[in-house]
Amino acid sequence: MNQESLKFAENFVPSTYVKQAAEVLRTRENIIRQLWQHKKIPEDGWDDITIETLLLQLSSMDSNNFPSNSGVGEREGRFASELVAKRHYHFGHGIGRSGDLTEPQPKAAGSSLMYSITNCLLKDLMKLMGIYSSVECLLVPVATGMALVLNMLTLRSLRPKAEYVIWSRIDQKSCFKSIITAGLIPVIIDTIKCNDQLVTNTCLIEKKIKEIGSENIVCVMSTTSCFAPRACDNIETISILCKQYNIPHLINNAYGLQSKYIMKKIQSAFNKGRVDVFVQSTDKNLMVPVGGAIISSFDKNLLQNIAKTYPGRASSTPLLDSFITLLSLGKKGYEKLCDDQLAMYDYLKQELTTIAESFGEIVLHTPENPISVGMSLCKIPSDDLTKLGSMLFLRNVSGTRVITTLENKTIAGYNFEGWGSHSKDLSIPYLTAAASIGMKQTDVDIFIKKLKKVLTQLHCNMKEPSDTGVNEH
Amino acid sequence: MNQESLKFAENFVPSTYVKQAAEVLRTRENIIRQLWQHKKIPEDGWDDITIETLLLQLSSMDSNNFPSNSGVGEREGRFASELVAKRHYHFGHGIGRSGDLTEPQPKAAGSSLMYSITNCLLKDLMKLMGIYSSVECLLVPVATGMALVLNMLTLRSLRPKAEYVIWSRIDQKSCFKSIITAGLIPVIIDTIKCNDQLVTNTCLIEKKIKEIGSENIVCVMSTTSCFAPRACDNIETISILCKQYNIPHLINNAYGLQSKYIMKKIQSAFNKGRVDVFVQSTDKNLMVPVGGAIISSFDKNLLQNIAKTYPGRASSTPLLDSFITLLSLGKKGYEKLCDDQLAMYDYLKQELTTIAESFGEIVLHTPENPISVGMSLCKIPSDDLTKLGSMLFLRNVSGTRVITTLENKTIAGYNFEGWGSHSKDLSIPYLTAAASIGMKQTDVDIFIKKLKKVLTQLHCNMKEPSDTGVNEH
Amino acid sequence: MNQESLKFAENFVPSTYVKQAAEVLRTRENIIRQLWQHKKIPEDGWDDITIETLLLQLSSMDSNNFPSNSGVGEREGRFASELVAKRHYHFGHGIGRSGDLTEPQPKAAGSSLMYSITNCLLKDLMKLMGIYSSVECLLVPVATGMALVLNMLTLRSLRPKAEYVIWSRIDQKSCFKSIITAGLIPVIIDTIKCNDQLVTNTCLIEKKIKEIGSENIVCVMSTTSCFAPRACDNIETISILCKQYNIPHLINNAYGLQSKYIMKKIQSAFNKGRVDVFVQSTDKNLMVPVGGAIISSFDKNLLQNIAKTYPGRASSTPLLDSFITLLSLGKKGYEKLCDDQLAMYDYLKQELTTIAESFGEIVLHTPENPISVGMSLCKIPSDDLTKLGSMLFLRNVSGTRVITTLENKTIAGYNFEGWGSHSKDLSIPYLTAAASIGMKQTDVDIFIKKLKKVLTQLHCNMKEPSDTGVNEH
Amino acid sequence: MNQESLKFAENFVPSTYVKQAAEVLRTRENIIRQLWQHKKIPEDGWDDITIETLLLQLSSMDSNNFPSNSGVGEREGRFASELVAKRHYHFGHGIGRSGDLTEPQPKAAGSSLMYSITNCLLKDLMKLMGIYSSVECLLVPVATGMALVLNMLTLRSLRPKAEYVIWSRIDQKSCFKSIITAGLIPVIIDTIKCNDQLVTNTCLIEKKIKEIGSENIVCVMSTTSCFAPRACDNIETISILCKQYNIPHLINNAYGLQSKYIMKKIQSAFNKGRVDVFVQSTDKNLMVPVGGAIISSFDKNLLQNIAKTYPGRASSTPLLDSFITLLSLGKKGYEKLCDDQLAMYDYLKQELTTIAESFGEIVLHTPENPISVGMSLCKIPSDDLTKLGSMLFLRNVSGTRVITTLENKTIAGYNFEGWGSHSKDLSIPYLTAAASIGMKQTDVDIFIKKLKKVLTQLHCNMKEPSDTGVNEH
Repeated sequence: MNQESLKFAENFVPSTYVKQAAEVLRTRENIIRQLWQHKKIPEDGWDDITIETLLLQLSSMDSNNFPSNSGVGEREGRFASELVAKRHYHFGHGIGRSGDLTEPQPKAAGSSLMYSITNCLLKDLMKLMGIYSSVECLLVPVATGMALVLNMLTLRSLRPKAEYVIWSRIDQKSCFKSIITAGLIPVIIDTIKCNDQLVTNTCLIEKKIKEIGSENIVCVMSTTSCFAPRACDNIETISILCKQYNIPHLINNAYGLQSKYIMKKIQSAFNKGRVDVFVQSTDKNLMVPVGGAIISSFDKNLLQNIAKTYPGRASSTPLLDSFITLLSLGKKGYEKLCDDQLAMYDYLKQELTTIAESFGEIVLHTPENPISVGMSLCKIPSDDLTKLGSMLFLRNVSGTRVITTLENKTIAGYNFEGWGSHSKDLSIPYLTAAASIGMKQTDVDIFIKKLKKVLTQLHCNMKEPSDTGVNEH
Repeated sequence: MNQESLKFAENFVPSTYVKQAAEVLRTRENIIRQLWQHKKIPEDGWDDITIETLLLQLSSMDSNNFPSNSGVGEREGRFASELVAKRHYHFGHGIGRSGDLTEPQPKAAGSSLMYSITNCLLKDLMKLMGIYSSVECLLVPVATGMALVLNMLTLRSLRPKAEYVIWSRIDQKSCFKSIITAGLIPVIIDTIKCNDQLVTNTCLIEKKIKEIGSENIVCVMSTTSCFAPRACDNIETISILCKQYNIPHLINNAYGLQSKYIMKKIQSAFNKGRVDVFVQSTDKNLMVPVGGAIISSFDKNLLQNIAKTYPGRASSTPLLDSFITLLSLGKKGYEKLCDDQLAMYDYLKQELTTIAESFGEIVLHTPENPISVGMSLCKIPSDDLTKLGSMLFLRNVSGTRVITTLENKTIAGYNFEGWGSHSKDLSIPYLTAAASIGMKQTDVDIFIKKLKKVLTQLHCNMKEPSDTGVNEH
Repeated sequence: MNQESLKFAENFVPSTYVKQAAEVLRTRENIIRQLWQHKKIPEDGWDDITIETLLLQLSSMDSNNFPSNSGVGEREGRFASELVAKRHYHFGHGIGRSGDLTEPQPKAAGSSLMYSITNCLLKDLMKLMGIYSSVECLLVPVATGMALVLNMLTLRSLRPKAEYVIWSRIDQKSCFKSIITAGLIPVIIDTIKCNDQLVTNTCLIEKKIKEIGSENIVCVMSTTSCFAPRACDNIETISILCKQYNIPHLINNAYGLQSKYIMKKIQSAFNKGRVDVFVQSTDKNLMVPVGGAIISSFDKNLLQNIAKTYPGRASSTPLLDSFITLLSLGKKGYEKLCDDQLAMYDYLKQELTTIAESFGEIVLHTPENPISVGMSLCKIPSDDLTKLGSMLFLRNVSGTRVITTLENKTIAGYNFEGWGSHSKDLSIPYLTAAASIGMKQTDVDIFIKKLKKVLTQLHCNMKEPSDTGVNEH
Repeated sequence: MNQESLKFAENFVPSTYVKQAAEVLRTRENIIRQLWQHKKIPEDGWDDITIETLLLQLSSMDSNNFPSNSGVGEREGRFASELVAKRHYHFGHGIGRSGDLTEPQPKAAGSSLMYSITNCLLKDLMKLMGIYSSVECLLVPVATGMALVLNMLTLRSLRPKAEYVIWSRIDQKSCFKSIITAGLIPVIIDTIKCNDQLVTNTCLIEKKIKEIGSENIVCVMSTTSCFAPRACDNIETISILCKQYNIPHLINNAYGLQSKYIMKKIQSAFNKGRVDVFVQSTDKNLMVPVGGAIISSFDKNLLQNIAKTYPGRASSTPLLDSFITLLSLGKKGYEKLCDDQLAMYDYLKQELTTIAESFGEIVLHTPENPISVGMSLCKIPSDDLTKLGSMLFLRNVSGTRVITTLENKTIAGYNFEGWGSHSKDLSIPYLTAAASIGMKQTDVDIFIKKLKKVLTQLHCNMKEPSDTGVNEH
C-alpha cells in the first residue's frame, strides 16, 4: 500500500489509525531499505511478515510473474503445480546466466538481486565469525563435495600442467572423491598421532611438494572441521608452505563456519601465508536443507573465475533457504546459536567423561577440535564394536560413529588403512559424537542415556552372552 | 488414522459415516500403494491432499523428524527457520550418501524412497514419450550444463587417454562451457545450411574422428532441442558413426523430452547405433524451477557410474518438485501439456506467417525443429536489429532472440563466427520464438501484437527517424 | 521495496533490469491503489502474489504485528501456534469493537480496512448481479441461520410490541429455527401447488396480516433460493403487501446471489414495494468455507442497527475468505462461474429428463427455480424411497434429496405435514438435485450414472427382491 | 503408507531402514490413536508433521474431498480460491447440521470428528485448570458476547415468563450489550468499594431478586475476569443465592480459564450453590484469533439445549484453531503458559509499584484479581488523563486503559456513571494493565519504559506547559 492507497484508506478508518499503521509500514520498508543499503545481516532477526513481504516483492520482479509477460522462449519459469509454485514463492528462474553464476539474469531481476545480497550477507557473516580481512563469498547451489570439485576444476584451468592434489587425510568419502571426480591425482598425507590427537603431517607435505614439484600440484587441500580425535589441520603451517612453494591452498571448512576458533585460525593462516579458497556447507552451518555451499576467497578474481566455471543456471533453493535463515536469525540469533554450540560441546564432553569413567574408558584429549569428541572403547571386544554402532542407530541415535581402526577400504583404487580414523597410526577403538550448531540438551541427554544402556548391555554380555536386541527400548 | 483410531471414532459419529470415510481413506492408501507397487506415473493426477499426505509420511521417515531422535553428528537435518522447514515439508537431509547419489541414506529413509521412486517415474515418463527400449533415469540436482559436465567426467574416467569432445555446434553458452569446465578440448563442428534449415555436418564429424582417433575422443555431443533454424541434430547418423568408431554418444536433449517427435528420434538412434546418455532439463520439460536434470541411459552400469561420480550429498529440491509435479499431473495431465505444445507450435507458426507476410519477411521452413520457429528480418537495417530485441524485452516479451549473424564471440579462447546462428553459413538476420510446454495462447497473442507494433515502428523510422521508446505500451 | 531500496538495488543488477522490475512493482501497487480508490471488484482476478502481498501489508497494520508493540491488555492477538498464525496471515484481532461490528478497531487498523473494503466489494457484487438501486452490504461472521436471527432481533428491537413472523414455508430446518431462536412466534404459510410448482400463498399471508395486526408482526420472511418444486417466493407481491401494511420484509436469499434471475426479482420487489433486508450465504455463493453471511439492505440506517446488534468482536475468517476469493476471481471470474451455473442447470435438467423418460418418470416443470430440479419417483414403491436416498449417499452422491411427501415432523412444537415438500399439498414422491455454483460436468455425469444404476436395481428388485448393496460400485 | 506400501518400499531401500521408519510411522499413528481413545490433551505437544497429517486425514473424510464425489446439492464445500482451500486444509463444510451444532454432519465426517474431539479436549482442559466435577464443554464459533446471547436465549426459552437479567456491573460494552441483543432487561448492580477493590454487591442482588421475583428473572450474570480494581465477582455467594431462589447463574469467565485461581472459585461456587453455565473466550485463553467461545456446564442437558439453539451450520475455523493449538501445546505447554502468566503478573505489579512510588502514586491492592493491575493517577490533572491514554496508544502500547471515573455513558438507554470504573463509587483516576497469557517480559519492559517517559513529560508540562507529542519516540 503506497502513499496514495493509504490516503484512500483514510476514507475507511480514522486517519490516526491509518497514520499509526503507515508508520509501521514505513518501519518495515526501512528495515528492507537498510538491507540493500548496508548489505549486512540485520542485528535483530526479521519477523516472518517482513521476510515474506520481501520475498513476494522479489519474485514479482521476475519475468514469469509479470502480469503482462509474454513468454516465447524455451524456459519461461512456468509452473505445472501450484504446490511447487507456492513452496518457491513463485521463483522459477533459478540463478545465473549461461556463462556465469553471478551474472544478473535479465528474465529474473528479483532472483538476481536476492543472489547478490545473499553473497553480501555471507561476507558479513564471515566478519561476524572472525574474518577481518577483506573476503568475498559465493553461494553455490551444490553441496560441499561438488563445490570442492568446482574449485579444483577452476584452479586446474589456471595451472594447466598441474594434476596432483596434496591432501591431508580425512576419512570422509565425499571429500576424497571430489579429487577423483575432478580428474586429479590425490597425494594422501596420513595424519599423525600426537598424544590423543591426530595432527597434520606438515613435514611429509613439504617433502611431497618437493618431490612432485610445485607446478604439477593443483593445490594442497586441508580440512578444519572433522571428527575427533583428528584435529583441525595445521592450516597456518600449510599456508606458509603454500606461499613458499607458490601452490594454491584450498581449505575444506565444511562445518567450521559455526566456530570462531576455526574461523580465527583461517584468518591467521591467511595472515601468515596463503589461503586461496575456503569452502563451507550451508546446511551444516546455517541449518538449512542439504544442497548449498559457501565458497569464500580473499581473492575476488579467483572467485569470479569459479563463478564462471559453473556452466549454466542453477537452483535458487539453497540461496533462498540461506537468505530466509540469515534474515530470520539476525546477527544476534546466529551468535546465540554459536554460543549454544560451545555450551553444548562442553556439556557433551562432561557427560561423556562421566560415562567413560564408569566403564573404564577415557575421553580423548583433543583441544584442537572444537566440535567433536571421542571416547575410547577399549573394553569392548572388537567383535562387538560394529554391533554397538548399529544398536545405537536402531535406538534412533544418529550421527555417532564407532571406529574400530582395523578396517581397510579401497576407494577409486586407493587403499585406506584404518578407515575412519584418518590415519594408520591409531590403534584404540573409539566412538565420536559432535556438538554441532542447533544441538539441544535433550539430544545429549538421550544419547548419553542410550549409550549407557547399550554399553551396560554389552558389558553384561561379555560375562553371559545373549542379546534381546531392539525390543527393550 | 489406523483401524483402531477409526474404531474409536465410531464413539463420536455414526458408524456409517465413519465407514464411508474409512473407505475413502483406504482409497487414498491404495493410490499410494499402487505407486510403490507399480512404479508408474498415475493415470490421473493426484489431488493435493494425497500428495501432501504422502510427503508428510515420507519426511516423517527421515531421522531429523523422529520424535525420539538424538542427533549427535555434524549434519542432523536441523532447521533454524520455520519458514524453511515448512517449504521443504521438513525434509532436511538431501539425497545421496558420501559416495553415491543413489545410495540410500541411513538417516533419511523417506528422502531415499522419494528419490528411488522418482527415478522410476521418470523412466515411465520416457516410455510415455516414446522410448520403448529399456532405459534407466537418474534425476540429478544440477541443471543441464552441470549434468553434462558430470557425464563427461564419468566418460573420461572410463577412457583415460581421451580428452577431445566432438561437438555439433549449438550457440548456447552453457552447453559449450560444460566441455571446458570438464577440462576437455572441444572440436567444434559447425552446422551447415540445407535450404532454410541448419543441419548436422556428419561428414566433418567422421573426418574429425578419423583425424583425432577414437581412443582420444571422450564422446560426441549432439543436441536435439534448439532454436530454429537449427534443426535437431541428425542423431541417427551420429549414432551409427559412434557405434562404428566405438565412441560414446552424449545427447543434449535439454527440452526435447516434451516432444514425442524428438524422443522417437532418440529411440531410433539407439536402434541404429550408439546412444550412451541423453540429458534433459527438469525445468524445461516438467515446469518446475530451474535446478535439476534427468540423465537417461540404456546402460544401467554407466548410469550407476555417473551416480557415483557425484561426490557427497545433494539438494533434494529438484527431486521434490519433480515428484510433486508428476503426481499432480498424472499421465493424462502430461500428455495434455504435450498436445497443447503441438497446438501452440502450429498457432505460433501461423501467426508469425501472417505477420511475416505483411512486413515482407518469411517464416523459415524448419520441419525438423518441433518447438522453435524463426522469422527473417531482412527488411530491418542491421543497426536496428539489436534495438528490436531490446524493444521487445522492454515490452515484457521474454525468450525471443534476434540474431544478426554478424556477431563474433570468443569463449574460453574459441572463436564463434556468426554467434547465435550455430553456423558461420547463415547470412539472413532473423528472430526466433519457441512454443514450449505450458505456453498459453495469450503468450502468442501478446507477442504477436507487440512484435507488430515494434516492426511497424521500425519500418516508420526507416522513412522518418525518431523513436519514443518504452512509453507507448 | 520502496524507491530508495530500488535505487540501492541498482548497485547489484543493471539499472535497466531494476527499472523494468520497478515498473512491475508499480503496476501491482496501482492495482492495489485502485481497489482502495474505486472500491470495486477488479475486472480481472488478481494473482496470488498481489493478494498475499496485500494481506501481509494489512496484517502488518494490526498492533499484534507491530515490531515495537507492547501488549498489556487482556486480548492482544497473540498466537500460541505458528501453524495457526500462518493460516491467518497473522491476523489475530478479528473484526468489530465492543459495541459494533463495523466500528474500526484501534488495535487492528488492517483488519478494519479489510472489513470495510470487503463490504464495498460485496456491494459491487450486488450491482454486478442485477441490483441497480443503492444498496449496502454487511458481511457477518455467522452463517445464514444465525444472520437471520440477528436481523429479527434488530427488527424486533425497533418494533417493541411485535412478536410474530409470517413465514412462507420452506422445509429447511435452520431457517425455521432462526425464528424460534430469536424468541419469536412463527406463522407458517404453506406453499400451494400450481401445476408442478409450489408457489407462495400470498392470499393467506394477507389474511394473516389482517388477523394478527401489523404492529404485532416483526416481519414477513420470504425465501428465494430453494429446492424444486418449490419456486422462488412471489417476493414482488409480498413486497407490495409489506408496504401496504407497513411491515418489514426479510428475504432469505441463501443461495440466490449466484442467480441474476433471482437478484433481478429482488430489485423488482424493491421497486414495487418493501424489501428491508436480504441475506445470502458466503459459502453457498462465493465458494468459501461455511461461516459467513452477507446482509444487504437498501436502508443504510437499518444495516447500521444490525451491525450494532452484534455484541463484541467476531471472527475475521469469513471476511478473509470472501476478500481473497473476490480478488482472486475478479468480475470476469465470478461472471464465468454464474454462466457455468446456468449451463450446468440446463445440462442437469436435460440429463435428468432422459433418465426420467427411461424409467417412466417426469422432470417437474419449475420455471421459477433457476437452480434446483425435481424428478418424480412415482414408480418406486414407497418402502424403497428412503433406501434410494441412502443408496445414493453410500455411492458418494451428496446433496440430493428424496422426498416421500408422507413424512411428518415436529420442530419446537410446530408440526409440518409432508416434511421436505414445503407444503402439505404435494403427493408425488420425488428427488431433487441442484446445479449450484462451481458444479462441474463430471458431478452431473457421475450423479446420472449412479442414479441410473440405483434406479435399475430398484426396478429389478420390484420383480425379484434381493439387494447386494454397496459392494457393486 | 500402509503395511503393503512399506513392504513394497523394501524394494527401494534396505529393509532395516524401512523397518525403522515404519516404527516411527507407527509411533505417530499411536499418538493419534491415543487421542481418539483417551480423549485427552496429550501430555507433550505434537509436532507439526503429526498435526498436519491428522488434519489432512480428517479433511479427506469430508465429502467435498472424496475423490469420486458427485455434489448435486446447494452446498458442496467447493472452493473458488486455492489460497482459501489451503488455509483451511480443504475443510469446507463447517460444523453442525441444520438443527444442532453438535449433530454429526453426514457430508463431513471428518469435521464432525474434529468438533467432537475438540469438545472433549476442552473438557480435559477444564480439569487441568481445576474443575474436578463432571463438566461438559461446547466450543461455539462466536466470540464471548454472542455466546452469552445464545445462553440467555436458551435460558429464556426454558423460563418463558422471565425477561430480567441481574447483572453485576462490569464496564465492558459487549457484555452489557449481550443482554440487550437477547431482548432482555438488564438490572444493573454496581460494584462497591472495599478498600482499594471493587466487589460484588450481593445484598443488592438479593434485594433485587426479591423485588422482581425469581420466575421473572432469566439469570444472574456474574463476571470473573476483569480489569482492576474490580475483583472477580463473589460467585460463591451469588451461587448460593441462585440456588436458594432457583435462578440460573451464568458466569462470564471471558479470560478466566487461564487462571487456576479463578477456575477453582468456579468449582467452589458449584460446590456451594448453583452454576449453570460459564463462558470463556478461545482467543483470550488459547491464543488463537478472535472468533470462538467455550461454553461449559455441569448440566449436559442444558448444554445440548444451547447447541440446539444455534440455527444451522457454522464456521469450523475457531474449532480448527483451538484443536491445532491444544495439540501443539500439550498439557505441559499450556501449564507452562499459565505459570508464565503468574510470573508476569508479579513482575508487572512490581515494576508498576516502582514507577508508582517515583511519581507519588500507588498500585491498587486488588488481591482478588489475578490478571489485571491498577495504578492511581492522582497527580495528573484531569485534563491530561485522556491525553495520557492516547500518548501511550501512539507509542504502540496497546491494552492499557486510563479511567477518569468522571465519564458518563448511555448504552441502549441505560446510564453508566463513572463509565470504565464498574461503579459510581470510585473517585480516584487510575490506569490498568493486564498480564494475560502469552505476555512476554519485553511487553512489560517496553510498557514501563514508555509509561515512565509519558508520566515524566506530563509532570514536566504541569510546571511549564508544552508537548511535542509523537515525534520523540
